[in-house]
Amino acid sequence: MAELIKVSAQSRSTAVAGAIAGVMREHGYAEIQAIGASAINQAIKAITIARGYLEQDNMDLAVVPSFTEVDIEGNERTALRLAVYKRPANLTPPPISMNGSGHPQMV
Amino acid sequence: MAELIKVSAQSRSTAVAGAIAGVMREHGYAEIQAIGASAINQAIKAITIARGYLEQDNMDLAVVPSFTEVDIEGNERTALRLAVYKRPANLTPPPISMNGSGHPQMV
Repeated sequence: MAELIKVSAQSRSTAVAGAIAGVMREHGYAEIQAIGASAINQAIKAITIARGYLEQDNMDLAVVPSFTEVDIEGNERTALRLAVYKRPANLTPPPISMNGSGHPQMV
Repeated sequence: MAELIKVSAQSRSTAVAGAIAGVMREHGYAEIQAIGASAINQAIKAITIARGYLEQDNMDLAVVPSFTEVDIEGNERTALRLAVYKRPANLTPPPISMNGSGHPQMV
């Protein structure tokens, strides 16, 4: 299993982004853990920045989030776990339909 | 293009999760926009909850985050845009290697 990157509210997004890019280049997979709104925000921003860093490597990223229970000094807390994958070529929006609600209308 | 789901700091995660699940069932693709740490946190939690809602549909989700500039009452703000896709079957962790740094060691 790849290293777990733990992100806190004090983490700098660009530093975390560098760590994510490094782990993705080496292992092709990374896991990030964050607890609380500020840390989760930093983690998501870091993944978004890492997408830019990895453009030069012709690598894009896709994320699958999940909840996990962790023990913090004897207290059970719910953490967000972000599994980061290489974005596969088939991960694209569906073709645009010209009818149906929410789709572009012919005018 | 599918509807844009706008999430605010006041949005309830479970309500947003229901909206995401509905759009994914209908269109197979959704886009979410959030500005600020609280809204981004709500959006990510909502996607995680929606994964649970869609289990009964045998659908899983994967997310690609990006930044986008939006105009809020004449001011330019950076928003987080979350593109939500059906998770393809090939989006899985790489096979575990038994050597190399960060990998399980034989003991």
